[in-house]
Amino acid sequence: MIRFDNDYMAGCHPKILEQLSLTNLEETPGYGHDHYCKEASELIRKECGNPDAEVWFMNGGTQTNSTVLNALLRRHEGVIATDSGHIAVHEAGAVEAWGHKVIELPSTDGKLYASAIDRYITDFYADATYPHMVFPGAVYISFPTELGTLYSLKELTDISEVCHKHNIPLFIDGARLGYGLMAESCDVTIKDIARLSDVFYIGGTKVGLLFGEAVVAKSSKLLPHFFTTIKQHGALLAKSRLLGIQFKTLFTDGLYYEVSQHAIHQANRIREAFTQNGYKIAFDSPTNQQFFTLPNEAMDRLAKNVSFEVWGRRGETETTVRFVTSWSTKTEDVDCLIQQINKLNNK
Amino acid sequence: MIRFDNDYMAGCHPKILEQLSLTNLEETPGYGHDHYCKEASELIRKECGNPDAEVWFMNGGTQTNSTVLNALLRRHEGVIATDSGHIAVHEAGAVEAWGHKVIELPSTDGKLYASAIDRYITDFYADATYPHMVFPGAVYISFPTELGTLYSLKELTDISEVCHKHNIPLFIDGARLGYGLMAESCDVTIKDIARLSDVFYIGGTKVGLLFGEAVVAKSSKLLPHFFTTIKQHGALLAKSRLLGIQFKTLFTDGLYYEVSQHAIHQANRIREAFTQNGYKIAFDSPTNQQFFTLPNEAMDRLAKNVSFEVWGRRGETETTVRFVTSWSTKTEDVDCLIQQINKLNNK
Amino acid sequence: MIRFDNDYMAGCHPKILEQLSLTNLEETPGYGHDHYCKEASELIRKECGNPDAEVWFMNGGTQTNSTVLNALLRRHEGVIATDSGHIAVHEAGAVEAWGHKVIELPSTDGKLYASAIDRYITDFYADATYPHMVFPGAVYISFPTELGTLYSLKELTDISEVCHKHNIPLFIDGARLGYGLMAESCDVTIKDIARLSDVFYIGGTKVGLLFGEAVVAKSSKLLPHFFTTIKQHGALLAKSRLLGIQFKTLFTDGLYYEVSQHAIHQANRIREAFTQNGYKIAFDSPTNQQFFTLPNEAMDRLAKNVSFEVWGRRGETETTVRFVTSWSTKTEDVDCLIQQINKLNNK
Amino acid sequence: MIRFDNDYMAGCHPKILEQLSLTNLEETPGYGHDHYCKEASELIRKECGNPDAEVWFMNGGTQTNSTVLNALLRRHEGVIATDSGHIAVHEAGAVEAWGHKVIELPSTDGKLYASAIDRYITDFYADATYPHMVFPGAVYISFPTELGTLYSLKELTDISEVCHKHNIPLFIDGARLGYGLMAESCDVTIKDIARLSDVFYIGGTKVGLLFGEAVVAKSSKLLPHFFTTIKQHGALLAKSRLLGIQFKTLFTDGLYYEVSQHAIHQANRIREAFTQNGYKIAFDSPTNQQFFTLPNEAMDRLAKNVSFEVWGRRGETETTVRFVTSWSTKTEDVDCLIQQINKLNNK
Repeated sequence: MIRFDNDYMAGCHPKILEQLSLTNLEETPGYGHDHYCKEASELIRKECGNPDAEVWFMNGGTQTNSTVLNALLRRHEGVIATDSGHIAVHEAGAVEAWGHKVIELPSTDGKLYASAIDRYITDFYADATYPHMVFPGAVYISFPTELGTLYSLKELTDISEVCHKHNIPLFIDGARLGYGLMAESCDVTIKDIARLSDVFYIGGTKVGLLFGEAVVAKSSKLLPHFFTTIKQHGALLAKSRLLGIQFKTLFTDGLYYEVSQHAIHQANRIREAFTQNGYKIAFDSPTNQQFFTLPNEAMDRLAKNVSFEVWGRRGETETTVRFVTSWSTKTEDVDCLIQQINKLNNK
Repeated sequence: MIRFDNDYMAGCHPKILEQLSLTNLEETPGYGHDHYCKEASELIRKECGNPDAEVWFMNGGTQTNSTVLNALLRRHEGVIATDSGHIAVHEAGAVEAWGHKVIELPSTDGKLYASAIDRYITDFYADATYPHMVFPGAVYISFPTELGTLYSLKELTDISEVCHKHNIPLFIDGARLGYGLMAESCDVTIKDIARLSDVFYIGGTKVGLLFGEAVVAKSSKLLPHFFTTIKQHGALLAKSRLLGIQFKTLFTDGLYYEVSQHAIHQANRIREAFTQNGYKIAFDSPTNQQFFTLPNEAMDRLAKNVSFEVWGRRGETETTVRFVTSWSTKTEDVDCLIQQINKLNNK
Repeated sequence: MIRFDNDYMAGCHPKILEQLSLTNLEETPGYGHDHYCKEASELIRKECGNPDAEVWFMNGGTQTNSTVLNALLRRHEGVIATDSGHIAVHEAGAVEAWGHKVIELPSTDGKLYASAIDRYITDFYADATYPHMVFPGAVYISFPTELGTLYSLKELTDISEVCHKHNIPLFIDGARLGYGLMAESCDVTIKDIARLSDVFYIGGTKVGLLFGEAVVAKSSKLLPHFFTTIKQHGALLAKSRLLGIQFKTLFTDGLYYEVSQHAIHQANRIREAFTQNGYKIAFDSPTNQQFFTLPNEAMDRLAKNVSFEVWGRRGETETTVRFVTSWSTKTEDVDCLIQQINKLNNK
Repeated sequence: MIRFDNDYMAGCHPKILEQLSLTNLEETPGYGHDHYCKEASELIRKECGNPDAEVWFMNGGTQTNSTVLNALLRRHEGVIATDSGHIAVHEAGAVEAWGHKVIELPSTDGKLYASAIDRYITDFYADATYPHMVFPGAVYISFPTELGTLYSLKELTDISEVCHKHNIPLFIDGARLGYGLMAESCDVTIKDIARLSDVFYIGGTKVGLLFGEAVVAKSSKLLPHFFTTIKQHGALLAKSRLLGIQFKTLFTDGLYYEVSQHAIHQANRIREAFTQNGYKIAFDSPTNQQFFTLPNEAMDRLAKNVSFEVWGRRGETETTVRFVTSWSTKTEDVDCLIQQINKLNNK
């Protein structure tokens, strides 16, 4: 069985493991006060082109989203997201658990457009009853989105401008950031992300680390008392140096981009194999998640030797499926998958 | 200026005021332990045909909705509602503030249909990732809805059956219950409401009282420790007898139905005047809220002498407006409004 | 049976009822936008000597405490109170339900002293681990306290200065404010309360109204978006004019002080009767709550004709009891109580 | 500089690291569905002598405490703890953030006694106003406590019986469980802990792992829907196998006890050195945390070469300090510390 279920099936990149091993018995202070966290923060600030950025390390995506949003939002505010956004669907209501509504705007391609945000906020304040309603207090987008789609630099700039016009922060969920940045069609850099968002995070769990996400805030005013907020969320790692060491390694010698690039290359090969064999692309994703709508018969045959995710429910005659590559995807596994795809039409 | 803005512009029905005055200096225990609350509860249990029902009195609608839902839902659960439901829009995120997601299903007529509920819950459990999602833990509907529309007995029975099939409680917001029950086309009785729901409330604030809503739970197991939950929500009235006295009077000699009936009669007269003059009905409401889509010019002329609510935003050429009657609507004010409507076409 | 259980057994002062009756069928906007709320606010601002004060009306004490504190506190902050404070004991954890710890400092007389606050906050920031702890974000005191005791002007000034020194707001719970201000030994005025606190509230429920508390914030910056916060707490009364009318009447012609004065006079008579008969005062209260430690035998004899509250648990040989007077206490009832007390020693 | 600041300064035990390295590129399902989590759970169930126990893995102590307590408590309930308990002091109000009061009982030795719990709960229900108060819904103790002290089997049995008598669950925080179990004077086994508690956790972060705590619930009914609750708390690790692998290794060949035993041995050596030199023990701890009250002069001299924690504030002439050993404490570091202590008296 070869596996394309998701991008968190393996441990971490060997270089990361090597650093964890080398430093294992070193004694450091905890809770973010170790020198590795400081060095990693410095590398990230440089990478983002913002010496004033504040960097915080957390353990996983849902934790990061609910902690950052709880810090950004005041009690009468909610966050605008698409109805397929991770916080709207797959975080077990973590944002609401901390008291904030996720204001869901409909989307077909997983993207939230500047025009939709602008219209929502404008309509909100035009409604005389708005003080009885949840105020839009932040905008949440993912880069890439849940459907693997990407914002262009123009689209991102427009969103950023709408947010600033309405004076609410833009938060970008970068759980798979590297896979977005390395997509062939991507015209956005990490510096753009840092410049156009107020807060974003660099996903590590899915991009080479054992676990870890690096939150980057444009200025120290955005997340006041964030240390205590992190602690209150149960999100403060005692041995913070584990995060520091991992992110330091990830942002040394471009490892982050290198591992992301690998995943994109393999994803492209898979897409080509499916499309050359006449299969339908479900969502136009240039990133490490590839979605196809397959005849059930083909899907069932593939499933005998390949593991992948059924996206949504199985349809009557065809079903949308997801194939995911990552930093750890083996070239020979993709070779093998392509062979299987090529054989599908020769029943 | 004659006013049809809403149904909470006046104080209370004279009979209610009379009882409050007569009992004013009587000394009673507080927090629900007075004999008036007990008598009112007994009257309501009888009216509902359920001697096992538990009755609680609260002050207002948003308070009642968030307190009851917080009691019904477990921490991993949310409540299914339409996207125009009061809890989804006009309660400032009170349900989310207590940690629960409002799972919004789209609706064009303000109603939630059994089939949509069934599909949502069935799809939910068919999705392998459902343990990562907010569980549907209750269904919330309003009778009448925010758009003045009503469920038929058949529709309500279907919803009730779907809820029981999936083993989740049905909660009916009856802020305007009387105006629903007294609608000419309504084939539902208060006994039906009590029988088909798990918890519902009888709105008093909009139907003759100074303030007050009576929560009716089918059994005492549904809202365990509700007294303390009410207190924790800041919803426990010290002088509870104010609620007891008001509801006792409201359910003596059919006053609740009588005052509701009056509002419906006046609402019907208004609808007739608009339709006879060729104006469009926006939502087909048989209750005390009437929605029309008027040419802006007609709307502006009316607005010189009549006060009403613009529903949503003003359109380019026409706009939807709301006229509301209540127990306190004066017949002569409706006479006057009808004259104004009749004159609209004679520019 | 004559009753001294508490100060919320009767309805409202006849003058209040008269105004509610006179205005009953008037049509006004709701949610605080009526002219009565505006007039009452203006009267209160004048009374407080602060034209910049912001006034909000709410329904009851627990609701007011949790809503105001939730507005004052940031998510990493808690509120300092005595361990006998109402928010620490009798509000069913309403402050914690909104996410904030009540930091309880021990107290024997119900009072929180400036020195204790100062020491707590100074020690807090001297502890290197403080970022892992709940920050002291506000100070809560009651005037009078739960034990009927009062702060002198000097004590209140000291508390206020400590709060300002540490830059955290002082919130005064005035559920029984009138009974404090009218105490013979009181050297504090409502203007002092308004000047020395950041936010306080004027209790109405226990001082002549059917229900209602008036929140007074020193400036509009203290409670930003408080309208929406009130709504989210389920604390926004639709027919707000009920609160406006009541408070307008209460602050017209000194009614608030007049009714408070009456309660104090009757409380003093009761205390005198007990002390002249040799009974022990439990807490030295100059206000409308009087606490005595009685031999159980005497307590039991009194209880045959008089209703009062057992404070804490019944002791082996003697027990502390509470007698409460209010605006509605009848002089003849106190006469009768005094006779009973005088007879206690003639077994 | 030799360090005795805390027990989370180093990475993990070499055997743990070895297993993480060996399995690093293996592909496994996430979110607890991997075979390592299953194997580790099985080992723990065996160790606890309870085949019905449910085991869950989480990342850190504060996270575990707030998630478990939020699952155990209903919304009107709080948790009883000592006023020095970790949840009462050093978790930034995480329990309150989820809506639950920490009911703090005073303690001088860090321990909560059965008699104090019994008295609190008995008094609570004897108070007629208890429905207005936070219900005691669970008992929280630590083994060892924050002060390094331990419960005897008799004391633990008494607490367990009081909890069962009052029908509320006992939750034991075992962040340093191993260091308690291996203390020379300890007469409690892990089977006792599992038998006498309803839920407890086995701390890994401080006892040999990179991070991780294993929650053990006596039965599957105690933490219903806990998977979703964990997710909602942001506490679900994507690569759960990291926890599985670590705990599997820790409970293979008695590694947990072996590493704990080492720390205890070194702690005992330190205590002996201090006491033989006439220094005062501050709290009588038989575990890996040792507290001494030193003359400031001696403390300052030691601090030149040794790193340790000042406990509380520096006193005028003497100060309480904490020395902590762990699985990673080097024997030669303790040798060196002992030399320094021995030299203190030879000024």
